[in-house]
Amino acid sequence: MVAIVDASLTQFGKREEDLFQLAKQSSLPILRKFGGEVDFIVVSNSYSGEFSRVSGINNLISTYLSLDYIPSIRVDNTSGSGGSAILVAKSLLESQVAKSVLVIGVEKMSTMNTREVTSVISSLLPPRERSAGISVPSLASLMARLYMKRYGATRESIAQVAVKNHKNGAKNPFAHIRKEVTVEEVLRSNVVADPLRQYEFCPISDGSASLLMTRDEDAMSFTSKPVYVKGIAMASDSSHITDREDILEMRSVRTAGALAMRQAKVTRVDFAELHDMATILEIAEGEALGILERGKGWTYYLDGRTEIDGDIPINTSGGLNSKGHPIGASGVAQAVEAYLQIRGEAGVRQVKGRVGLTLSMAGFGNSATVAIFGDEP
Amino acid sequence: MVAIVDASLTQFGKREEDLFQLAKQSSLPILRKFGGEVDFIVVSNSYSGEFSRVSGINNLISTYLSLDYIPSIRVDNTSGSGGSAILVAKSLLESQVAKSVLVIGVEKMSTMNTREVTSVISSLLPPRERSAGISVPSLASLMARLYMKRYGATRESIAQVAVKNHKNGAKNPFAHIRKEVTVEEVLRSNVVADPLRQYEFCPISDGSASLLMTRDEDAMSFTSKPVYVKGIAMASDSSHITDREDILEMRSVRTAGALAMRQAKVTRVDFAELHDMATILEIAEGEALGILERGKGWTYYLDGRTEIDGDIPINTSGGLNSKGHPIGASGVAQAVEAYLQIRGEAGVRQVKGRVGLTLSMAGFGNSATVAIFGDEP
Ligand SMILES: [Ca+2]
Repeated sequence: MVAIVDASLTQFGKREEDLFQLAKQSSLPILRKFGGEVDFIVVSNSYSGEFSRVSGINNLISTYLSLDYIPSIRVDNTSGSGGSAILVAKSLLESQVAKSVLVIGVEKMSTMNTREVTSVISSLLPPRERSAGISVPSLASLMARLYMKRYGATRESIAQVAVKNHKNGAKNPFAHIRKEVTVEEVLRSNVVADPLRQYEFCPISDGSASLLMTRDEDAMSFTSKPVYVKGIAMASDSSHITDREDILEMRSVRTAGALAMRQAKVTRVDFAELHDMATILEIAEGEALGILERGKGWTYYLDGRTEIDGDIPINTSGGLNSKGHPIGASGVAQAVEAYLQIRGEAGVRQVKGRVGLTLSMAGFGNSATVAIFGDEP
Repeated sequence: MVAIVDASLTQFGKREEDLFQLAKQSSLPILRKFGGEVDFIVVSNSYSGEFSRVSGINNLISTYLSLDYIPSIRVDNTSGSGGSAILVAKSLLESQVAKSVLVIGVEKMSTMNTREVTSVISSLLPPRERSAGISVPSLASLMARLYMKRYGATRESIAQVAVKNHKNGAKNPFAHIRKEVTVEEVLRSNVVADPLRQYEFCPISDGSASLLMTRDEDAMSFTSKPVYVKGIAMASDSSHITDREDILEMRSVRTAGALAMRQAKVTRVDFAELHDMATILEIAEGEALGILERGKGWTYYLDGRTEIDGDIPINTSGGLNSKGHPIGASGVAQAVEAYLQIRGEAGVRQVKGRVGLTLSMAGFGNSATVAIFGDEP
């Protein structure tokens, strides 16, 4: 298997810098130490063409970083690109194509206004659902209604996901939204897709995150505290979300989670970074992964169990909800948070425990990659 | 290592079908036989957003193919995407992430006119060169002038690349341009970037090509005649082409070729599919790979040595020049030609010999992936 031996990220948010400058900011701290070791670059990015009218960004980034002769590719899986890029990096390492892979997740989104961004992101929906006016927020709203009805969850319990994530994000110097919010403020914020409100969705962010990955056996020559990938798996579900038997099921998440846990030989994790593009998704994903009890996930939030000092901290980084969601960077940034937590370098966000899970997801679970990280292989 | 156990492609050209229909057309013949075996899909595509306003196409394609539960990613490296996708498929197989990978290369370009397509493709150039008005055709023109001057090559010898490739393409039922041309016709066609003419550049094409790949040891359970990947390597060069010491050098091509040949333990190949986006590139690439003698490549064309019945056939498929160049599909289609040739199924284009080379290249050699295929591992 493989390990993360260095990790870094930029401030997320509306940034003045372009795609290349952001990629450089997140990777430079790694390159200063290990630039001579990198022999492959995997760029996780989805929308450079749409947002910045740039293509072939892996080659342009390698030139921009003065790594002209290092081979590179771009891996895309929309919102789930980061997890996909880590899976590809693992495969490149294990198949001996590379000895150390620099994974750079980057997205520059603030070149467009909210309406334009929404239109670009909607291009991942199947033509049939797109023409029926379905959007990712409207699917989240459908999910929230169904979840509350089926399990008797209170509206406040779902809003509490945003409260908790903003509380964590306020502690993260790299987060986009560094402001705590109350349940009342969440429920008073603008309706995006009834009943879900503005504070319950991720903002539109620019940002970049980078990882240096090697094979297990090489990791200790880079750092005395590698963070090992104990398991990683991808699973898929129908892109026709309205065709799914049960929208709460999150089949891809459940499948990828079970496969990754089996690979990692663990039955539980100490913390998790989930794909909280909307509040309700964090609860549904936690249940699909078996981190939260089925139908009772919402109660964990009322009881504070998913907070940093709870028994199963979720999104200590602030999550997509507060840290921000620069599409191609998000899944890589989740791994950065796991890296910091497992090394005990998460500062005021530090949790106990040595095994963490990340879920990188495309669309509404069209694709899910789950990775289990730990301080041992 | 790994093998190709099935391969298929669509007619290249201006097609009525959309991206999804093209992907289905190339993959369906494989899926009819082996649909139940596929456990990962790698989509090679660069510009679905730009040309078709669609993103997340790997997930949309898997749903369109009724392979909802099969994990998938998109791999992009502009014109070199196909080679990159094959390299990623090899890694996914060797690292046990998958047992059989369906590689689908696809690009739908004819949604836009020539001017718009040129503008999209130019987005792969570094901002500095783009703003200086440099385009990929103008770089090819620069290369042609330099080559003729340095080596005393005649103008006709370069045009002869197009004559040979059109002759081959006329024999390929899947080629976009199925019309032989004479040297006189080539030299009388419209100037694109003086001295290079229209018939010396690839047309704008739609198309798709698919491969089914497995590990060596599993290949014989799919077919009695697997085509083995004997070696595959990627190398990179500066994206600032005007910074390169020698524009004829093709460093990425030379490096990737040497690495792949060493892996394959071969010193020569029986045929090659090169990246003839422009005529002069085929000659420069052949020399960088050591297939053509340095500075004398042009004479091979005058002597007919690169023709189907020559001693080193190049682009028996018609190449990008005549078969067409649907960006994400091209590198995959090169492997399809190698598959047919090595299995003895290339019909009127059949060459002798059992070892073939493909060169999948991004931009003007920003990235190059060379693969060596053979009838033995
Ligand atoms: Ca490069």
